[in-house]
Amino acid sequence: MLGGILGSPVREGVPEHGRMPRYYAAKAQLVELLQELGEGAVLPTERELAESCGVARETLRLALRELLLEGRVRRQGRGTVVAGPKIEQPLSLSSYTEGVRRHGRMPGRRLIGLDDFAAGPDVAREFGVEVGARIWHLERVLLADEERVGLESTYAPVALLPGLDRDFDPASSFYAYAREACGLLPGGGQERIETVLATPREALLVGTPPALPMLLLHRRSWDELGRRFERVRTLYRGDRFSFTAELGAAAE
Amino acid sequence: MLGGILGSPVREGVPEHGRMPRYYAAKAQLVELLQELGEGAVLPTERELAESCGVARETLRLALRELLLEGRVRRQGRGTVVAGPKIEQPLSLSSYTEGVRRHGRMPGRRLIGLDDFAAGPDVAREFGVEVGARIWHLERVLLADEERVGLESTYAPVALLPGLDRDFDPASSFYAYAREACGLLPGGGQERIETVLATPREALLVGTPPALPMLLLHRRSWDELGRRFERVRTLYRGDRFSFTAELGAAAE
Repeated sequence: MLGGILGSPVREGVPEHGRMPRYYAAKAQLVELLQELGEGAVLPTERELAESCGVARETLRLALRELLLEGRVRRQGRGTVVAGPKIEQPLSLSSYTEGVRRHGRMPGRRLIGLDDFAAGPDVAREFGVEVGARIWHLERVLLADEERVGLESTYAPVALLPGLDRDFDPASSFYAYAREACGLLPGGGQERIETVLATPREALLVGTPPALPMLLLHRRSWDELGRRFERVRTLYRGDRFSFTAELGAAAE
Repeated sequence: MLGGILGSPVREGVPEHGRMPRYYAAKAQLVELLQELGEGAVLPTERELAESCGVARETLRLALRELLLEGRVRRQGRGTVVAGPKIEQPLSLSSYTEGVRRHGRMPGRRLIGLDDFAAGPDVAREFGVEVGARIWHLERVLLADEERVGLESTYAPVALLPGLDRDFDPASSFYAYAREACGLLPGGGQERIETVLATPREALLVGTPPALPMLLLHRRSWDELGRRFERVRTLYRGDRFSFTAELGAAAE
């Protein structure tokens, strides 16, 4: 209750005119139930839940669907279980590895593809290379333990990382490789985060229901000499991740 | 086309087995059309669009609904128009005012409510005050020009801001007031961002379709003496906002 006061508006879910949609009332009851049951517990059947909430099966499914999209429950086999908290990812460090490890889970990556293509005018300008210069496109699924939690597309100039297709282990860190094999010492970067819906292909690769809200992180990084050595587009499951930042003196 | 290479995966939307859902193909056609039409242009009718994409009305609506949720189009009167780019909000500064101004729009806030309540044990610990101490709860709708774009709940100890209900202009900045009227100089803070679905009440207050993905920002701030003077929960329309951060040397 007190957690509720700070975690969400006091009158959350109650429209101004005071009527609460039926599915939302059922959802509120389910949220209480999840807290009682605790992480990992299996939920009663839809029929049982609909009965105890006093709503139709269809209404109950609407409530369950939102809890699923929000990552509060997840499917397991043919049942539904109470999900754990979202993984908190430090935004200012951008370290996927560290954020996942901090939650006691094992980070991993699975290769989808590594190709190179000729830079057109926009890409060339982006990286400060000639038109036609070769650019890597590395695509990997992000894993936490064995669960697929994201999809990462990395673009990088071949000239700066010529051996990427020979001596880079796609299960390992791109930054560690850039640093150790190519002497690209991180100098700085820019990140932008937004929420998007998964495309069908992305949903398939990450193993999520289609149209699940995702957190999309765009990042450009340069090395200490100011050379742009990567542009990354990472899609994180919105039901599994949140991002954190430490602030200096806040402005207004 | 080249923008597409960096802005999204090359094979975006194409599942591995190579079949593209019909609605997604229609959506891809619509995205091209939006680019041709440009911001603010009115889209042809659903019937016309369905015809030109060669899909059923139902399929077209699915595609349009995703574009609406993603903020690429918006409703205007009875029609649908091409939306402008998302507002980029600097995460490390946390200044709503500045982010909106940078996009040439006028920031504003509309008061929903200002109440105080007695801190229970959790809230008391949170702010480092006695159990039973009074805590403000200020709730405001965020505006960009006259458009409602977010909903902000601010919690703050009454002892540190005793005159909030008397001499604070709810259309103005809480930080400016804290600084100027109460001598609370910003010392630091923590932010966490995640994607959530709007509750029915939130959707009503912000004027969005229910279940629109939102960006939820949690922030705790303290002053230069380490006194926790606010906890904020801000809900931004996911179709209207993205957040940016500048990175130092990136870690792994």
